[in-house]
Parts: sequence; structure tokens; C-alpha cells
Amino acid sequence: EKMWTTGAFHDCSGNIIHMLLAKLPGSEKISLFLVPNVLQDGTTKNKVELISLNRKMGHKAVSNCAWGLDGAVGYLVGEPDRGLMCMLGMMNAMRIEVGIGAAALGKRGLQESLLYAQEREQGGAQIVDYPDVKRMLLAQKAYAEGSFSLCIWAAGQHDLALAGDEEAKSLLGVTTEVVKSWPSEWCLVGNTHAMQVLGGAGYVQDYPLEQLYRDQRLNMIHEGTAGIHALTLLGRKVQGGRAEVLFRTMRRDAKFAEQQATGGVGWAAGDEDVLTECATKLREAVNRLEHVTNVLTSGDTSRDQALTNAQSYMNLFGHTVISWQWLRLATAAARLLDREYKGDDEASSSETGASPTSAAAQFYQGEIATCAFFYRHELPKTEAAAALLLSLDETVAKMEPGWF
Amino acid sequence: EKMWTTGAFHDCSGNIIHMLLAKLPGSEKISLFLVPNVLQDGTTKNKVELISLNRKMGHKAVSNCAWGLDGAVGYLVGEPDRGLMCMLGMMNAMRIEVGIGAAALGKRGLQESLLYAQEREQGGAQIVDYPDVKRMLLAQKAYAEGSFSLCIWAAGQHDLALAGDEEAKSLLGVTTEVVKSWPSEWCLVGNTHAMQVLGGAGYVQDYPLEQLYRDQRLNMIHEGTAGIHALTLLGRKVQGGRAEVLFRTMRRDAKFAEQQATGGVGWAAGDEDVLTECATKLREAVNRLEHVTNVLTSGDTSRDQALTNAQSYMNLFGHTVISWQWLRLATAAARLLDREYKGDDEASSSETGASPTSAAAQFYQGEIATCAFFYRHELPKTEAAAALLLSLDETVAKMEPGWF
Repeated sequence: EKMWTTGAFHDCSGNIIHMLLAKLPGSEKISLFLVPNVLQDGTTKNKVELISLNRKMGHKAVSNCAWGLDGAVGYLVGEPDRGLMCMLGMMNAMRIEVGIGAAALGKRGLQESLLYAQEREQGGAQIVDYPDVKRMLLAQKAYAEGSFSLCIWAAGQHDLALAGDEEAKSLLGVTTEVVKSWPSEWCLVGNTHAMQVLGGAGYVQDYPLEQLYRDQRLNMIHEGTAGIHALTLLGRKVQGGRAEVLFRTMRRDAKFAEQQATGGVGWAAGDEDVLTECATKLREAVNRLEHVTNVLTSGDTSRDQALTNAQSYMNLFGHTVISWQWLRLATAAARLLDREYKGDDEASSSETGASPTSAAAQFYQGEIATCAFFYRHELPKTEAAAALLLSLDETVAKMEPGWF
Repeated sequence: EKMWTTGAFHDCSGNIIHMLLAKLPGSEKISLFLVPNVLQDGTTKNKVELISLNRKMGHKAVSNCAWGLDGAVGYLVGEPDRGLMCMLGMMNAMRIEVGIGAAALGKRGLQESLLYAQEREQGGAQIVDYPDVKRMLLAQKAYAEGSFSLCIWAAGQHDLALAGDEEAKSLLGVTTEVVKSWPSEWCLVGNTHAMQVLGGAGYVQDYPLEQLYRDQRLNMIHEGTAGIHALTLLGRKVQGGRAEVLFRTMRRDAKFAEQQATGGVGWAAGDEDVLTECATKLREAVNRLEHVTNVLTSGDTSRDQALTNAQSYMNLFGHTVISWQWLRLATAAARLLDREYKGDDEASSSETGASPTSAAAQFYQGEIATCAFFYRHELPKTEAAAALLLSLDETVAKMEPGWF
């Protein structure tokens, strides 16, 4: 019997195949098998049976079930006894996909709530003009687009790694957990904001917000829970200085942003030098993360003590990584905005210096503003997490189950 | 026509009455009316009609609807033109009730997920022994019981205020918003943790966790949205030094906790002097909150600038107030635990010094541990909020709607 299998039974296709881990007779190790509902001859039914469908809170477009496979036929996939390795390759890609899915739901929440905020009036103004509504929209944009940026970067590293790029392999090795976990957690916060923008209307089925809120909640649970990923990240992935390649990459991009800023481009070089401000803050954040990582993975710290607050480490790590993504986005936006200011051909050179009002220019300004938002409103949250981790706080560890 | 009315139409009782605000003919001011579905003679139907029921995500035990009352009869309640005052009295009590409801759902989530964590085994151990699970349970306990404590305190002040107690009136005036908002927001985080403890099982209808998650989400929306309460708190309630009475009360309780701690009671006076640690931290937190309040409400700060980050002020205010409640709980628990250590009569005096293992003693230890958790894991979050507020950050205000 197997539980929590998604898509194992439904009426949308003639045959359904399952990838399954099991041991070959006489072996202690795990192999990977393909188990179809209909055998290779195309007519014989395999001995698989649906036990029950799970009644889920959301994600209702796909079925999830408990099923039995007593006496079922499975075909070996890959080499015998190498099942775990085969599966892990698939699962790494799946984790990027969960991140992208979470980002997509987050972005959808932004779009729906923005649309509503632009139409809905209260006290004689569109509610999109109210600071608290703008805050909730900005936070959604910061979470969703920051997540997208991270996932797309990771997908690029995934392709490079398949082509044999060693640095990409190392970078992917240390970021897979955050690519899955951060969007799942923070785009859920975003979807909560989206519902809040609509108020009561967000709570009813007339709008899609309540569905996004229910659907998104699954992402912290499936493909490895948030807690497991936090433990894997701190307990395994960043051990032995293996996060250094990521720290180096983030520092390089901070430097790149600074160089571009001092080159004097558009909005970013005006009164508010967002690129320089954020590059400085990113450098500090990377230093902080590196210091915490070194302390927690050093031989002087007991492993149990270090891992107790693994979730705080994930928060610190994730917010730092998303800050980095936002600086990359803002750096690109500033460059493109600069082009809008200058005009991109001789004919429009007379417009140089005029404030550009094209849709593209507005979008670039929004990217830079959202970057500033993330650095000023979100990144500072990591300071408390870092302090907690450095104190090797044992409050949680010392709590006795009988005391609840 | 009226929208979003809860309980206006259902089949559970013969008659249903509505409290409604409207203007008397010829008056500019608002009066309060009672509008029944069946008139006073007990048989004549009033001209009220159901337009449609709202299909809500949760809170499905009560109906919510849009309805029409063209030509309906209403009876004046209270004095003419004083409707808003009458309504506000009711609404203040309602807000405490929303807080209590949110706390109750939070506590239920704790109980259900604790039960599951005590039964469910993974890797040869009950999952309640895993630090990350304990963290999620502790956080739930901190949110739910801290909320309860605040609400019960507020209900006490409400009774005192009705009896004419001026200090109680002042205290209630400055805390009504946080009593409604903090439990609504943080017990939702708690319910998210509760679901996470169960993993996939929390996401399906076999357990009540998914319902708690859906039901709880309403509390940030109804009886005034979180955003409105944050604006009311900062824009009106704490203006003119009116929060001083609360700061004084919190400082008095910090001093009381310290005196008890130095008196040398039980667990709290052992290696970990939780009461002294938390009393010191509460004093710092109150100083911080007072400073931020003074800056934001001073004549030198523009009102718009101050109110832009009202939600951050609510976070700062709320976490400080809940810290205070936890110190009160821990102070009481330490005193009672001390009694358990000493034995409470002559006969058991020989047991003095033995570690008490009664259910009561375990509960008291849990209260002190949860207090420590809140001060170490939650209260530090207020530092980033305070810094943001003091910087009078305008990132949100400067974001143009066209940039999203």
C-alpha cells in the first residue's frame, strides 16, 4: 500500500504510470521501477487498485490517493540498486518546479488583488492609493518576482550542471532547498496579503483569491516538508564550506551593481542611489550569513545544538538569497531604464533627460522600488534570526513534551 | 441593500433581528435601529429579503449574505442621532470576542497537532521529540495562550470600565485594536504551524486542521480589517500620550516579576532566571515602544509619513503587549511552581527541594518555558520594526500604482 500519491488514479488518460522505489529480490538496496496501470501489451490490467481518494483542502485539479499494488508488475528503470540516485535526479528538478509553481500562485495573487485595488474605491480614492494596500501589493511583488528570479536562475544552473559545469553543480547543490522552500513559505504570505486587499470579497468564491490561499498551502508540505529542507540545508548542504561558492557569487553581483551605480545610470543614480545602498546591504548580509554558517558548522558547535534552530537558518539564508536576486533584477532594470532616459537611437536623442513614461520605464522603476522595499522592509528581519542562531539558543530543545 | 451581514437569514430560529445604522428623516446624523425579520406582533413579515448567500472559504457554520430592506420597518434603539456611539459600545465588546475566538482556534490547533505529534512515530521516535516540531508547538502555545491572556485581561478591563473605573477605560481605549488584531494574525500563523506538524494529513479533511486554517483566516478581515485597526491605533488611540497608562502598567508588572524572582522562587530562580531576564527585556521593549510612539506622534513628524508604516507599528505594539502578558503568566506560574516545590502543607514539607512531577508542576514549567520562548524567538522581531518606523521609511508611499 502507498499513501499520498498524486495523479495515480484519474479518468484523464488511458494509462497511468508510476515511478516507484522497491528492492529487487535478494538485494538490500533500493531500485527504481516503472509501474503502469495497464501493462506493456496495452490491454492487460496491472494489479494496482485505488483504496481511497484524499479529500484535500486545495489543489483539487489533481487527484491524490492511497492505493494498493499487491502482485503488481513493475519494470526496472536505470541500473539495479541505484534507485535512490535516479529518484534524486528527478526530485531535484521537481523542487525547482514546486518553487516555480509557488511563485506563479504568488504572482497570480498580485495580479488579481492589484486589479481589484485599481477598481475599488473607498473614501473617494482607489484603494491602490492607500499605503497599507500598496504595502501588501509591494510585498507580494517582492515575494513572487524574487521567487521567480531565484527559480529561473536555478533552472539555468540545472541546465549548466547537466552539461557538466562544476560551479553550477556546486551552486545548485547548496540552493535546491531554498528554491523549493522560500517561495512556498513567502508566496503563501503573499497570497494572504492578496486576500486581505479584497477584504470580505477575498474570503468568498466569487474571486479566485481564496483558492490561491488554499492551493498554495500545499507547497510547504509536498516534495519534502519545509522542516526537512531546513535540516538538509544546514545539516548537510552548507557543511564543509560548500556554501562559499554561493557567497562568492553574491559578492561578485554586489560589486557589479556598485560599478554600474557609480557609472551613473538613470533613476538609480539620482537622489536615491538604490543600487549602491542595496549592494552595501547585500555585502553585509552575506558576511552575516557566512559568519553564522561558519559558527554553526564548526567542530566547536555540537551538531544537535546547531540544528535545533534550522528553520531560523533557512529564514536567514532564504532572505539573503532573495535579496541577492532582487539586486540582480534592479541592476538590470536600472540599465534598461537608463536606456529609456537616453533614448536608444539618434532620432530620440533630443529627449535625453526627460522622465520616461513608457510602460517599460514604469515597470523598470517598479523593479527598482521593489528591490528597495525588500532591502528596507524584509532583509532587516534576518538580524534577529542571525542573533538567535549565534546564541545557540536551546529554549526549544529544552522544552519537555510533557510541559505543553 | 446591505452586503456582508452575518446571520441575517437562516432556518435556526423563528425570528432574526438586525442592528442597523441609518438616518432619521430630516437628520444628518446616524441613529441605531433594530430591524426584525418578523414584526413585533409576532406574525407580520418585515420587508426584508435575502438577495444571496455568500459562498465563504470557511466559517461555514454561520450564514453570511447580501439582503434588501426596501420599505422595511426598524425600531429606534437608544437616543436619536447617537447611533454611532451605541454601535461603538457593541463593537468594542465584539472586538474582544473576535480576539477570544481567534485564540480558541489557535489553542485548538495546538491541541490537535500536539495529540498527533505524540502518537505519530518517525525514525523510531515520536515526532514531538523533534526540535522543529517542538518549535511549531511552542510557537502555537505562545500565540494562543498569549492571546487568551490578553483577551481575558481586556475583558476584565471592560467590566471595570463599565463600573466606572477611569484607568480601565484608558487602558481599554489603547488596547482594543491589538486585542482584535494580534490574535487574528498570529493565531493564523499558529494554525499554519498546526497543519505543518501533520504534514499531508493536515491538508486533508480527515483531520480538523484544514478547517481551522480556513476558519481562522476570517478574523483578520471581519469587525474591521487589520489595516484599519493599525491606522486607528497609531493615528488616533496612542496620540497625545494616551498610551502612557499602558507603558506604566507594563513597567509595574516588570518590576513585580523582578521582585518575585529575587525573592528566590522555584525553577525561575535556578540556573535560568527567566523572570529576571524577561523583566529586563520587557523594560527595554517598553522603552523602545515608548520612544517610537513619541517620535511618530510628535508634531515634528508629518502625519502621512508616520502612518505609512502603521502595520509595522501594530507589530511592534502587539509583540510588546504579548511579551508583557507572557511575563504575567510566567510570574504566576513561578509562584505556583514554587508552592509545588515546597509542598503546600506541613505534612509534605519533607519533600521540599524534590523536583515536582505533578501535572500542575509540568504545566507551570511549560508556561515559564513558553515565556522564555516568546522573549527569545519572537520579541527580537520588534527591533527591525522599530528601526523601520524610526527611519520614517517612505518606500511604500513613493511606490506609484503604475509601477506594479
